[in-house]
Amino acid sequence: NVDLTHLEELLKTNPPSLVSLMHANNEIGNVLDLEVAGTICREYGAIFHSDTVQTMGHFRHDLQKLPVDFIVGAGHKFHGPKGVGFLYVNAEKRINPLIHGGSQERNMRGGTENIYGIIGIAKAMEIAYAQMDEHRKHIESLKSHMIDKLSQFEGVSFNGESGNLEKSLYTVLNVNFPPSAEADMFLFNLDINKISASGGSACTSGTNIGSHVLTELHTDPNSPAVRFSFSKYNTMEEIDYVIEKLTGILKG
Amino acid sequence: NVDLTHLEELLKTNPPSLVSLMHANNEIGNVLDLEVAGTICREYGAIFHSDTVQTMGHFRHDLQKLPVDFIVGAGHKFHGPKGVGFLYVNAEKRINPLIHGGSQERNMRGGTENIYGIIGIAKAMEIAYAQMDEHRKHIESLKSHMIDKLSQFEGVSFNGESGNLEKSLYTVLNVNFPPSAEADMFLFNLDINKISASGGSACTSGTNIGSHVLTELHTDPNSPAVRFSFSKYNTMEEIDYVIEKLTGILKG
Repeated sequence: NVDLTHLEELLKTNPPSLVSLMHANNEIGNVLDLEVAGTICREYGAIFHSDTVQTMGHFRHDLQKLPVDFIVGAGHKFHGPKGVGFLYVNAEKRINPLIHGGSQERNMRGGTENIYGIIGIAKAMEIAYAQMDEHRKHIESLKSHMIDKLSQFEGVSFNGESGNLEKSLYTVLNVNFPPSAEADMFLFNLDINKISASGGSACTSGTNIGSHVLTELHTDPNSPAVRFSFSKYNTMEEIDYVIEKLTGILKG
Repeated sequence: NVDLTHLEELLKTNPPSLVSLMHANNEIGNVLDLEVAGTICREYGAIFHSDTVQTMGHFRHDLQKLPVDFIVGAGHKFHGPKGVGFLYVNAEKRINPLIHGGSQERNMRGGTENIYGIIGIAKAMEIAYAQMDEHRKHIESLKSHMIDKLSQFEGVSFNGESGNLEKSLYTVLNVNFPPSAEADMFLFNLDINKISASGGSACTSGTNIGSHVLTELHTDPNSPAVRFSFSKYNTMEEIDYVIEKLTGILKG
């Protein structure tokens, strides 16, 4: 969790600053209070950027009230197309483009636009917002059920705040399984049982680098840490299937 | 046209250099001999980048032979999807990424990939190469027909080399019409006749900036310059329709 007292100390000694904090951590799901963090930034004249990629389409961001300067979204995080995202820039802020060359996107990003992606992400946002409350309720019930079931396993714990429904993303549960000689095989075993789950973040998939987030939490490197993600398309039966397979893998 | 003697003089006095030259100009269609330019660059140890966006999928680029370090392509230039492109990097060259953050695309561009775009551009390339010769022949016949017809108009000329089939893109014809009080209305008149043509480049559409290419050619700013583009989907009947409408507009 972000230490907001430390943030305030830093801002006192380093004005003016650019602060960039994730709204929710992609691996362990810890959620930051954007309103509190943003208010501290405003107080010290700091520019506040938040990586809201995990929460966009799942939590409401009211930009009329939220004291943020920049937030972002990515289509594939809320059932929109892959490879398209957006940056919201507060009207009071001016930024320079990273990609020059044409007047597209109000001179902010040169290059022919990905039209189908742009239309797709807009439609996905519309759908996500229209059905957010009912989807949240459904997904929370799945996560809650999985927490209950996994809590009955010996030696299983939850990384970060992910086991706490109040303090974490409702779409993510990061589980620490008992240390085992077969830690390397754990994700592989899930995969052959047709269970898609992740060991680290997608950004590091295919590499041998461990999770920097879990390293900071001092989790046992021999304990398999698995991130399960839930969507509106998942069912209670699927959760029970995962629990059943996990029981076999842990006994095996 | 690129003055290759001047290029050689510049390279003699500025080693080592990075040279970036368009394979074909997007507005007037002038084509550079990539083999000759690339050979000069190699001779002086210069790194050679070419913007091949206009020619990719329309001309063959044999990378086993061509002395280039970097060339590029954009999907929408050869009937592939918009918003996706590629950069070819010669295996002997190493570059740093512009967009950091993840290990995607061999650490060259962080971020979740536009999968449908990538698959689409690969398929479009495959189709473009498989049918390149027959499409070229068809499109050249359209352009040639339009040149013949327009040459009969009084006061009409072709900008750059675009009127010369041997020295220009076969997909582009940049036409200079006689100076007229209604120059501003020219593109608008084409548009209401359902003829899609362009005044400048797409990169500057919606802005009041004139074409820097035509400015360098010292064309009369009161003469409407229109870029007509041809594709494999165009027909001879469409060319005749454009000629008929142009006759009316110029008389009107």
